[in-house]
Amino acid sequence: MLSNAKLAYKTHGRLNADKSNAILYPTQIAAQHGDIEWPIGPGKALDPDHYFIIVLDQLGNGLSSSPNNSLPPNDRTRFPTISIRDDVAAQHRLATERFGIRHIALVVDYSMGAQQTYQWAASYPTMVERIAPFCGTAKTSPHNVVFLQGLRAALTADAAWMGGDYREQPALGLRAFSRVYAGWGLSQPFYKQELWREMGFDSLEGFLTGFWEKRYGRRDANNLLSMIRTWELNDLGATPGLEGLEHALRAIKAKAIIMASQTDLYFTVDDMKAEAACVPHAQFRIIPSLWGHLAGAGLNPADSNYIERELKALLAS
Amino acid sequence: MLSNAKLAYKTHGRLNADKSNAILYPTQIAAQHGDIEWPIGPGKALDPDHYFIIVLDQLGNGLSSSPNNSLPPNDRTRFPTISIRDDVAAQHRLATERFGIRHIALVVDYSMGAQQTYQWAASYPTMVERIAPFCGTAKTSPHNVVFLQGLRAALTADAAWMGGDYREQPALGLRAFSRVYAGWGLSQPFYKQELWREMGFDSLEGFLTGFWEKRYGRRDANNLLSMIRTWELNDLGATPGLEGLEHALRAIKAKAIIMASQTDLYFTVDDMKAEAACVPHAQFRIIPSLWGHLAGAGLNPADSNYIERELKALLAS
Repeated sequence: MLSNAKLAYKTHGRLNADKSNAILYPTQIAAQHGDIEWPIGPGKALDPDHYFIIVLDQLGNGLSSSPNNSLPPNDRTRFPTISIRDDVAAQHRLATERFGIRHIALVVDYSMGAQQTYQWAASYPTMVERIAPFCGTAKTSPHNVVFLQGLRAALTADAAWMGGDYREQPALGLRAFSRVYAGWGLSQPFYKQELWREMGFDSLEGFLTGFWEKRYGRRDANNLLSMIRTWELNDLGATPGLEGLEHALRAIKAKAIIMASQTDLYFTVDDMKAEAACVPHAQFRIIPSLWGHLAGAGLNPADSNYIERELKALLAS
Repeated sequence: MLSNAKLAYKTHGRLNADKSNAILYPTQIAAQHGDIEWPIGPGKALDPDHYFIIVLDQLGNGLSSSPNNSLPPNDRTRFPTISIRDDVAAQHRLATERFGIRHIALVVDYSMGAQQTYQWAASYPTMVERIAPFCGTAKTSPHNVVFLQGLRAALTADAAWMGGDYREQPALGLRAFSRVYAGWGLSQPFYKQELWREMGFDSLEGFLTGFWEKRYGRRDANNLLSMIRTWELNDLGATPGLEGLEHALRAIKAKAIIMASQTDLYFTVDDMKAEAACVPHAQFRIIPSLWGHLAGAGLNPADSNYIERELKALLAS
């Protein structure tokens, strides 16, 4: 267990007088608060003119307490295993103790952030009015675990990782991690139709290096491994008092919009749909996208508009 | 270009008097001729009581000429890049020069073997009467290339690979290769339903080590890399005189049964179906399987029976 953990965050907008306009927006693997601001802004779904938005850095992301910024005996691979429940417990203390928030208008997020969103709604059912998890499940599926184990094996195959006690980042391992991720993060037709051109790349190789290797290559290896561990172990159904995934999902009281990407290879439509069916006040949506998991990453206008439209409808309900 | 290449093979049954009963059955990545005998036997689809079956070891597989059994200057990473056309040209010489075969009853195979099957039919249209490529495309798709690049990056992240000049196999790299492959080779529901239990494993970890790490960990690293390169570059539409994939597919005269696995993550139904639509005398089938790409590997009775039934129907036509 980590003591004296630090939680980084960034706020947008102002908390209103009755403290009823808070939106929580946690980060996910390899993201920091500045990386996920695409739905935030005047006129956007998360509008700081109306809401007090807290972007929460997940433990392990390099800004909150993480393997690379913790002191011995909690540094590097000695950093404790973090559960999604640990993330949410720390975020709850921030919201209540720092800001005095007792009511949350919306918890929203993507991927591992969706896992935190589900946990918020299950752990604090009377506090959370709405949730919008997208491209992420309440429980990590076995195939998703296999995918994550592939990432870990690729990263740690690099001897420069040195069991976590590297002086310099294991560049070859981070490159392998990125290259493996590239196949999973998007869809088969995304690559067939060369949709990376819409991101400004002019070759597949340019996309793999300029997007994927840059995305993960700039991160700390032990931080990535810590967050993968959190992801791999996640199971909302292990919440104390709410044992069993279906039981935990049925305990959610929040109004919910749950969105899957049609072509997501690891948080699949089938898995998300089955979970959504257990959430009492949920509507389920399929984002009609070829961008696979990255439909939720704010990278293309069509998918981002789809998600923002649903978020606006949820907030208006 | 490789000179004095050696081609390993194994035959089953006898060539009949008019040399009209030959079936060619090439291997695919990580397989050697003894590994793919599941459809061969009396009463099976490939029946040695009626057919002369030649199981052909693909170049690079460790039995035919390969990085690990070639002498300098063609050893290890200096082994020339092999194309599927090179494989088929060598197999053609074997069939015609060694056995005097001028007519082939069937070319059949799985995965990279399906790529060789398509090439046979396009390169020797009047010689090949029937083809049955399954779980493999005539042209490697861009997403498939990305998957293969992930495998390569994972294997070569291991410093013990030493640029290909290892003394001992790069064990960590081969392990990473296997772990990455594990996610791609099967389907999401395969893992969700724990279908590995049908193979006799009692834990996911046991399956990943006992099946996947064993499958690739016993192979030579440079051989695997050579075969990945062959796979990555494959394009039937680059056949001299038949430029353009659709053009090459339309040149096929053989009767064809083309089978995709419903849940194959890299030789997808969509890709296979689009190609099959261009083959003049083809029927397209979808194997109703949750075993992903491995539906074609002879690992479970339902899929194997499906494939064998189709092969028998094709041979009877």
